Amino acid sequence: MKLIVAVIQDKDSNRLSDALVDQDFQATRLASTGGFLKAGNTTFMIGVEDDQVQPVLELIKENCKAREQLVAPISPMGGNADSYVPYPVEVQVGGATVFILPVERFEKF
Amino acid sequence: MKLIVAVIQDKDSNRLSDALVDQDFQATRLASTGGFLKAGNTTFMIGVEDDQVQPVLELIKENCKAREQLVAPISPMGGNADSYVPYPVEVQVGGATVFILPVERFEKF
Amino acid sequence: MKLIVAVIQDKDSNRLSDALVDQDFQATRLASTGGFLKAGNTTFMIGVEDDQVQPVLELIKENCKAREQLVAPISPMGGNADSYVPYPVEVQVGGATVFILPVERFEKF
Ligand code: NI
Ligand code: NI
Ligand code: NI
Repeated sequence: MKLIVAVIQDKDSNRLSDALVDQDFQATRLASTGGFLKAGNTTFMIGVEDDQVQPVLELIKENCKAREQLVAPISPMGGNADSYVPYPVEVQVGGATVFILPVERFEKF
Repeated sequence: MKLIVAVIQDKDSNRLSDALVDQDFQATRLASTGGFLKAGNTTFMIGVEDDQVQPVLELIKENCKAREQLVAPISPMGGNADSYVPYPVEVQVGGATVFILPVERFEKF
Repeated sequence: MKLIVAVIQDKDSNRLSDALVDQDFQATRLASTGGFLKAGNTTFMIGVEDDQVQPVLELIKENCKAREQLVAPISPMGGNADSYVPYPVEVQVGGATVFILPVERFEKF
């Protein structure tokens, strides 16, 4: 058995959670901040049999991988007009940092 | 040495915490949600010598294991009288999902 | 690769965080309470290559190790004058409990 510890962005956490539930994987979410990813993040712990590691990694990749996203310009109202960019810009969102840990023993009470 | 990671229900966490302290085990609680257990849950991390794994597992089992509990009926006042059950019902509460992880090295500063 | 799990006091967490960032180590912070240390604490997870374990342990030791600190007396106003201590007292602050866990596989998406 393995314990998959995945640090992902908050914005991807509900989608990942739904995807895991759909495939009957059980996950626990820990509130986490900073570090691996700039924005607010969430740490998932997912306990799986060895042959289920790859399917779970695929789900994490599909739902959380780093990608570009167009962000609408923000009006310079009350801000600095000199730095105003009047067209959408691409920013990187998402991303996942995943540790697969060996589990010596597993119990359910 | 081993790191015991136990996901239990919030309602059992103070009782487990007291039981661990009574036996001089040190635990850290992480706020966690959803996943392994339906209700709000808490994740305990407990670092122990190899020969203390079994005693800690017994404490977790005694204080957190899944069990039936009678829940008093809720008055239909303002609710749906059609679904009102006028007698106590049994619901499952508690439960623990426990991972025992190998520790390669332990330091205390 | 290793996953370093360090439980430290809240008051040391920003200093440790800065020290890690300065050396380009990435860490995730988990909100945690009680247990290993009496005061509010924070759990850091830091993923590192094997040869970086020792440098990270040094950073944790430098920034978080248990030490004595002089605490100014609190005025007995509204309190119990009998237990009032009119001079600074030394209390122990800080401290770190650190687990180094083996990582079987690491992925970044
Ligand atoms: Ni296994
Ligand atoms: Ni050992
Ligand atoms: Ni390695």
